[in-house]
Amino acid sequence: MLRVLRGETVERPPVWMMRQAGRYLPEYMALREKYSFFERCQTPELACEITIQPVDIIGVDAAILFSDILVVPQAMGLEVQLVESKGPILPEPIRTRSDFNRIRIPNVNEKLQYVFDAVKLTKKELNDRVPLIGFAGAPWTILCYMVQGKGSKTFDEAKAFCYTQPEMAHRLLQMITDTTIAYCKEQAAAGVDVVQLFDSWGGLLSPNDFKNISLKYIGQIVRALKDEVLVIVFAKGAWHSLKQMADTGTHGLGIDWCIEPQMARKLAGSGIALQGNFDPAKLFAPISVIKKEVSQMLEDFGGQAHIANLGHGILPNTPVDHAKAFVQTVKEYKIENVKV
Amino acid sequence: MLRVLRGETVERPPVWMMRQAGRYLPEYMALREKYSFFERCQTPELACEITIQPVDIIGVDAAILFSDILVVPQAMGLEVQLVESKGPILPEPIRTRSDFNRIRIPNVNEKLQYVFDAVKLTKKELNDRVPLIGFAGAPWTILCYMVQGKGSKTFDEAKAFCYTQPEMAHRLLQMITDTTIAYCKEQAAAGVDVVQLFDSWGGLLSPNDFKNISLKYIGQIVRALKDEVLVIVFAKGAWHSLKQMADTGTHGLGIDWCIEPQMARKLAGSGIALQGNFDPAKLFAPISVIKKEVSQMLEDFGGQAHIANLGHGILPNTPVDHAKAFVQTVKEYKIENVKV
Repeated sequence: MLRVLRGETVERPPVWMMRQAGRYLPEYMALREKYSFFERCQTPELACEITIQPVDIIGVDAAILFSDILVVPQAMGLEVQLVESKGPILPEPIRTRSDFNRIRIPNVNEKLQYVFDAVKLTKKELNDRVPLIGFAGAPWTILCYMVQGKGSKTFDEAKAFCYTQPEMAHRLLQMITDTTIAYCKEQAAAGVDVVQLFDSWGGLLSPNDFKNISLKYIGQIVRALKDEVLVIVFAKGAWHSLKQMADTGTHGLGIDWCIEPQMARKLAGSGIALQGNFDPAKLFAPISVIKKEVSQMLEDFGGQAHIANLGHGILPNTPVDHAKAFVQTVKEYKIENVKV
Repeated sequence: MLRVLRGETVERPPVWMMRQAGRYLPEYMALREKYSFFERCQTPELACEITIQPVDIIGVDAAILFSDILVVPQAMGLEVQLVESKGPILPEPIRTRSDFNRIRIPNVNEKLQYVFDAVKLTKKELNDRVPLIGFAGAPWTILCYMVQGKGSKTFDEAKAFCYTQPEMAHRLLQMITDTTIAYCKEQAAAGVDVVQLFDSWGGLLSPNDFKNISLKYIGQIVRALKDEVLVIVFAKGAWHSLKQMADTGTHGLGIDWCIEPQMARKLAGSGIALQGNFDPAKLFAPISVIKKEVSQMLEDFGGQAHIANLGHGILPNTPVDHAKAFVQTVKEYKIENVKV
């Protein structure tokens, strides 16, 4: 995976799955029975164990730290409740100037030390078997939760906040950006090999709004990080801005399943690593179908400059052997005539 | 609007708004207080009154019949509950062969006569002031509700049904298609000037699945209708297939706000009418911003072969004067040097 992100030629694409440390794994569910979300997140031994589970059980080529993008708004002073199977709730979202005035750029070493401790422990336990990916939410996606206060199909209140109070919205986006840069730099210092930025709700914005509200801040983060750590930007649904995202200097771009790999390559330009893009719901198909369609996806991406992944997080009820079939199909794939 | 769909040159783009007869209007809310959803839908006098409200209050250039896409699965034998502000519930969704065996292709004149009565009454009351649009859901979107049983961000159970039981899924899609063709033909016979097909969840499918699961059946419907009535296909999020949708012979294509008008035109090809694509959440912006951005949208679409609309349904809390500003900005727009 690191070689692909550095632009080197490889024998086959590396493979991991977004949310691979998650609810489809019985071993994860056993820990979820015993510990709350934040206990799992904030206890380095638990975060480490959960992070490594899919490496041992599924055989993925990379681990991604068990955590949540909402630890950042939490560190900035907002209460975050993660209610199992109900999604996040922020009971005091930002709507007014006085709500906004409660928000602070935190000292990440003070507020998020448990993340860096989990990174260090996980790196030690992984013992260089596979790389470790750290992550953060992109500022627009974090603002969505800070303003809407919960999940939403449209994040209309977050958008209305940006459209009616643009000065405050941009100040908030800048504060999230500054916090995220410090947070990701400390993750890198603690040992993560790659940082992925998740802009899960980037695709809800028009191309022009995406540029002004999201890409501007993603660009700042990438430029601050890219010489210290490998970076992947995944803005779900924002196919229209793949070129501009590539121009930030990020090493890789996440791709969802709603675009053909050839089209994604055409839009993103040559060279940059593309990561994706299997429909997570297709892991419910019979294993024979999964194998056929994963092989087709690998062909469509062309073998090089590709990190095999899903196009979004793995779904909770996915059968474990189907997830294994996904990973195994990639690992058995042979690129013809490759010289490394 | 009819002239645009027929490919004629116009003085300015026509304008209407998806869900224009809806919850942002106090006059609509007053009727909602008194009558249940299905009372409003099934009583021609109420459906007619609600349909005409935005013509009188907002000044739109077309009326769209007040109804719901889920009257079709209801007519096919599934119970549908429309719980206000909670979305639809189908308490006995289709999962197994025996669920499937309960589904019938109905006699639409028997089951949906109230729709055709509402069309006739509305046409009479409109008295040719503006055209009347009828509509139906595209088969994939209807299947989503029939199988998932409720709204969903991912419609993963509907997808799993298609991936694991493809033969039954395609038989169900064909039954919905046959019902929809008969239903839309009767709407046309009763007097609607245009039929719009809503594929609200088309954008959840990969381009290849969209082709096999959705576009195939949309194509059948368009080909069966296009010589009898003007047709608009709106598959939200399915930008990747605009060309193939245009090739069905539909007169117009709906466009969501997550694509630039110029790119939509490039993908769809010249000639065909494009409808859209203002972000509904942007109607929360100050009126001065709305006017500026609507004017920009009109410029970007280039004036001809364009029906001004939102990129999805108007949101419930939209201020009425903001909706009026949207419509008024289009009506005041002047295309330079046009000769009609």
